[in-house]
Amino acid sequence: MNCIGKKAIVALLMALPIGMNVMAQENNKKQLTLEELIPGGDHYLYAENLYGLQWWGDKCIRPNIDTLYVVDPKTNRESALFTRAELNRVLAKENAGKLSHLQSVRFLWADKPQVLLTLPGKYVVYDFKTNELVSTRTTLPKAANTDYCAESGNIAYTIGNNLYVNDQAVTHEPEGVVCGQSVHRNEFGISKGTFWSPKGDLLAFYRMDERMVAQYPLVDITTRIAEVNNVRYPMAGMTSHQVKVGIYNPATGKSLYLDAGDPTDRYFTNISWAPDEKSLYLIELNRDQNHAKLCQYDARSGKLLKILLEETNPKYVEPQHPIVFLPWDATKFVYQSRRDGYNHLFLFDTKTDKQTQLTKGPWLVSELLGFNARRKEIVFTAINGMRSGHFTVNVATGKMNQPFSSCVESVHSGALSASGSYLIDRYSTKAQPRVIDLVDTKTFRRFNLLTATDPYAGYVMPSIETGIIKAADGTTDLHYRLLKPANFDPAKKYPVIVYVYGGPHAQMVTGGWQNGTRGWDIYMANKGYIMFTLDNRGSSNRGFEFESVTFRHLGVEEGKDQVKGVEFLKSLPYVDANRIGVHGWSFGGHETTALMLRYPDIYKVGVAGGPVIDWAYYEVMYGERYMDTPQSNPEGYKECNLKNLAGRLKGHLLLIHDDHDDTCVPQHTLSFIKACIDARTYPDLFIYPCHKHNVAGRDRVHLHEKITRYFEQNL
Amino acid sequence: MNCIGKKAIVALLMALPIGMNVMAQENNKKQLTLEELIPGGDHYLYAENLYGLQWWGDKCIRPNIDTLYVVDPKTNRESALFTRAELNRVLAKENAGKLSHLQSVRFLWADKPQVLLTLPGKYVVYDFKTNELVSTRTTLPKAANTDYCAESGNIAYTIGNNLYVNDQAVTHEPEGVVCGQSVHRNEFGISKGTFWSPKGDLLAFYRMDERMVAQYPLVDITTRIAEVNNVRYPMAGMTSHQVKVGIYNPATGKSLYLDAGDPTDRYFTNISWAPDEKSLYLIELNRDQNHAKLCQYDARSGKLLKILLEETNPKYVEPQHPIVFLPWDATKFVYQSRRDGYNHLFLFDTKTDKQTQLTKGPWLVSELLGFNARRKEIVFTAINGMRSGHFTVNVATGKMNQPFSSCVESVHSGALSASGSYLIDRYSTKAQPRVIDLVDTKTFRRFNLLTATDPYAGYVMPSIETGIIKAADGTTDLHYRLLKPANFDPAKKYPVIVYVYGGPHAQMVTGGWQNGTRGWDIYMANKGYIMFTLDNRGSSNRGFEFESVTFRHLGVEEGKDQVKGVEFLKSLPYVDANRIGVHGWSFGGHETTALMLRYPDIYKVGVAGGPVIDWAYYEVMYGERYMDTPQSNPEGYKECNLKNLAGRLKGHLLLIHDDHDDTCVPQHTLSFIKACIDARTYPDLFIYPCHKHNVAGRDRVHLHEKITRYFEQNL
Repeated sequence: MNCIGKKAIVALLMALPIGMNVMAQENNKKQLTLEELIPGGDHYLYAENLYGLQWWGDKCIRPNIDTLYVVDPKTNRESALFTRAELNRVLAKENAGKLSHLQSVRFLWADKPQVLLTLPGKYVVYDFKTNELVSTRTTLPKAANTDYCAESGNIAYTIGNNLYVNDQAVTHEPEGVVCGQSVHRNEFGISKGTFWSPKGDLLAFYRMDERMVAQYPLVDITTRIAEVNNVRYPMAGMTSHQVKVGIYNPATGKSLYLDAGDPTDRYFTNISWAPDEKSLYLIELNRDQNHAKLCQYDARSGKLLKILLEETNPKYVEPQHPIVFLPWDATKFVYQSRRDGYNHLFLFDTKTDKQTQLTKGPWLVSELLGFNARRKEIVFTAINGMRSGHFTVNVATGKMNQPFSSCVESVHSGALSASGSYLIDRYSTKAQPRVIDLVDTKTFRRFNLLTATDPYAGYVMPSIETGIIKAADGTTDLHYRLLKPANFDPAKKYPVIVYVYGGPHAQMVTGGWQNGTRGWDIYMANKGYIMFTLDNRGSSNRGFEFESVTFRHLGVEEGKDQVKGVEFLKSLPYVDANRIGVHGWSFGGHETTALMLRYPDIYKVGVAGGPVIDWAYYEVMYGERYMDTPQSNPEGYKECNLKNLAGRLKGHLLLIHDDHDDTCVPQHTLSFIKACIDARTYPDLFIYPCHKHNVAGRDRVHLHEKITRYFEQNL
Repeated sequence: MNCIGKKAIVALLMALPIGMNVMAQENNKKQLTLEELIPGGDHYLYAENLYGLQWWGDKCIRPNIDTLYVVDPKTNRESALFTRAELNRVLAKENAGKLSHLQSVRFLWADKPQVLLTLPGKYVVYDFKTNELVSTRTTLPKAANTDYCAESGNIAYTIGNNLYVNDQAVTHEPEGVVCGQSVHRNEFGISKGTFWSPKGDLLAFYRMDERMVAQYPLVDITTRIAEVNNVRYPMAGMTSHQVKVGIYNPATGKSLYLDAGDPTDRYFTNISWAPDEKSLYLIELNRDQNHAKLCQYDARSGKLLKILLEETNPKYVEPQHPIVFLPWDATKFVYQSRRDGYNHLFLFDTKTDKQTQLTKGPWLVSELLGFNARRKEIVFTAINGMRSGHFTVNVATGKMNQPFSSCVESVHSGALSASGSYLIDRYSTKAQPRVIDLVDTKTFRRFNLLTATDPYAGYVMPSIETGIIKAADGTTDLHYRLLKPANFDPAKKYPVIVYVYGGPHAQMVTGGWQNGTRGWDIYMANKGYIMFTLDNRGSSNRGFEFESVTFRHLGVEEGKDQVKGVEFLKSLPYVDANRIGVHGWSFGGHETTALMLRYPDIYKVGVAGGPVIDWAYYEVMYGERYMDTPQSNPEGYKECNLKNLAGRLKGHLLLIHDDHDDTCVPQHTLSFIKACIDARTYPDLFIYPCHKHNVAGRDRVHLHEKITRYFEQNL
């Protein structure tokens, strides 16, 4: 071997990746990168899925890119229904464009061999039996929030702040009045602004007057000279927007607004139609959010016909689910309520006003999927903590097909077939990233459509454990998740990072895939950190008492529970009690900052993203539900205003905020920075320009590298 | 001694400050804190001063809080003139308020025993011979930019954007048109907007129409919900404001505007009156800033009478000094020009248009202080690099009283007596923080009024050295300053922090007090850092060629010189070449960022405050002088746009910006952060809310603690 050869070998050895030793130890397993672990990363690893899976009556439709299959749920037998090539030939003939895959094809008519195709600027109905285009409906340029009605073929959409139906302007409102879009900042289960009647002859829609709402200035620094993007943002205790509900009749071209009285300081939620289209139901809620009324309005006159139900609570009521009429009996509907502490189903008889509780127990209905009319059953998803499943309950007898306690740790969602006889059951478990089964809702016999493989197979992975500790009240069980590095050595001392959210409407430790572990948790565990998450009191899917213990002083009880989590960690021989960090975003950003300030001797390093700092800067709908107003709860707002604790900062705290955060406005973080400067404490700061609440897309990898470096340098 | 006694002694020893050892080594000297070193600190140490020192004819006035003294500059004999008690008795009798000290008393009349007192909302003339109030003039509430005319007693001021004289509105302009205030963003030597004629009968004033200028949105986060504070900020290459010069006659109540033609893209600077008040002189400059015209306008008609002088330069001309007529000959005036490379005095004869250069040499006139009419001399301050002094030049003979080369390293400023026979000479040297002498301008005999003691006496101090190295061009001498820790050990290796400014209009290494050393430099040297500063080419007080080498590519040549500084540092055996940091603000923030990006292997840590990142975001007046426009110099703007180098960042770079920076807008830093995110590099960021360009007041201590921690953690 000559010298040149020797040099070449040395060069080759030097070029080998630094991780080689670890790889050798881990049986040649690969190391996961942030690009693989973080959504938006260049090589993001995700579990297989079936896109466009849906029901056509009682047949399951499974589209591929090029061929659309129909699966018989009785037999699991599959056959091709039509191909993209066939379809595109017809489209080409009519100059109607081209579909790039079949996964967006929608089967809206259980009894017809027709599908809806969404093409740029138009909706096309295609008959795959006759191989013809049945109808084409266009929308005007810049149409958004499009709502196609399968029954009538009418199309509602918005352009700017106004509502259009079938290319005719329904509203002519000035800037500041928004029609046909979601209102009340998507709280109270609201996610859209148009509601077609059962036959599609009438359209209920929201109109929100925001002109009296103060504008928050977000600054766009990408223009030649920076520009303001104002958002109307009603802050707790300040003047809020005013919402009305309109009904538009495309046949007459006329609209009316429900005669609901002065809309000031009221919420109008959970819109649903009577089966006969003659009346509209909705829930009206007072600004204090402790008194809800289920109201029936005459769809023709807009007059209030009846208040069917009222619900009050000394803390708050949070109606999130529209009523649903029984398909076989238009005099009865199902409504959902947490009045006994858990969200359950109730039957309301409009002839007698009689209410019957259909489900009961220390678990909650998470989704009403539909009905089996033949068996008079409701099919629904239920959850409690880490366990979840699908159930049926008989409307007449209140009998459930199985007890909730039969559930295993898992996370389920479902889609019911037209008759309610079959269910697409999508679920994950700790070990299974995604399973999709076809389920018979009577026998619960199931056929498997997909069992996704582990996207991390072949990579070094931490171990994931879950368990239960007691909350700070000494009695409540709390679920935790703990990750240990792959090469865990119980004789060593490991630093810990607590990932926290802790607020309502969210659960971090689940029964699903890897118990809800996030990609960054895996990354940091692989770097040698113990990663820990605890769902404190105040979080979701454990019932009203568990959630509402935080009422009027958000963040305080949550923090006490998190300290219990740290006490548990400190009891573990392999935890380095002097190296405990904490990270969270949004409510978790609040919690992170609060923990750093309230327990400065426990937490050494924190990274708080998009944190709420002062609930007075948060919006009316969410904020006042839990905190009331600054005027009516001054002590609570004072106690929870982290600016008042700015002088307590001891450790390293990095605050990260997006400059276009219109959920938790930048004023939170910037005013906290000012409070720290005034108090002569030293947080760190980073800003992600051009992002909203949290950093999405490609930059999410940068965000997590930034967070990683902060912990590596300081913890 | 019993056990309790022993414990008490141990506790006492443990309570001793950590710095004890150092203190013992330094002969019990105290350690300086940031509160002592930084302006705004709670215990800021500053050198003694004489406040309110001024001339009354040829007598020097030296006020104390309670007694006002007059000093005869011939003999240095001092006597009391009047007391605050006397004065306040008269004021009380007239219900005219009360003076809390005598240092704001102004002697405006050389030949009268009268002074002007500034009291809330009014100006009072007090005769200290008769012990009476002679006159009282009020101003309206919210008056600002007040300009009291000693000759006529007229008072000009502004309320909002309009001009008032003697409580009458002179202008009635809408928002966006500013009258009676400084224009052109204080460039071209402009610092005010009103100019009384010699007898005070006419008022010249600026009117600036900014309505066509784009507004930059600065966000105030201290309001209930954040609010925008817009500033009209003309960015390089964009539409700029339009300025006119008006003349107001208080006797007639009428105004006219000079007939200067279309004001678009022109600058109107250096306003001065003819001694007879019949004409007004000003310098008109084109937007390209390479062609200046000295114009004479008829004060009664507003017509242009004559263009007396024109000056062009292939790079730029920067007129900063109004012409001044000889007090003994109203047909001749002195003007200042850099046309031979250094700012010098020229005499212009209006009868013959003849120009005579009065001063010459490789040094520059920094201030024309006035005249000695009897001896036909001009008295001025001159400087070159670290040397400065006061001089006289005979207008007829061009003879200077002493050669510039006789100057020693020092920094001087002066105030001339009425006849020009005496001078208040304020200066500092490396060893002397402040000396104030009374100087005879003929004999240069001097009496000392104040020799301030060293405010740092008794504290541990670094040693301060200065020296010369060659610039990157291989020939130009550059001055550096180097600080070594008090307990310097040449056998050790020290980390270095380079403090840099580097832009025009500033000199960091001076011949004055501690060679211009800043408090933070001392603080860091005391912590064990070598502190280094180099005045690169492009900086001030070295002549036009030295300054203008940076033309059309600001930051590039400057950086090459700074690298020469580092090469020098690396040649020193006690410098740790792997631990070199850099810090600067504004232009120095640009330079810091540029050095971190252009020389990523040299600089390990940088802290850039209020940096210019992209000259296209900087304002028209300053920016286009050195860079031309983005349209006419696209290569230069591209080369100097640090966003284009964002991917080169290797070391630790902290960018600090003020959220109300209306000099260097936050878009600079935020767009750079975005560029780094796009390029996947990792700068750090901090924002000081509610501050403008640089952090002033109490928070300046926080700022420097923040900067200190960043270097301590990363360097």
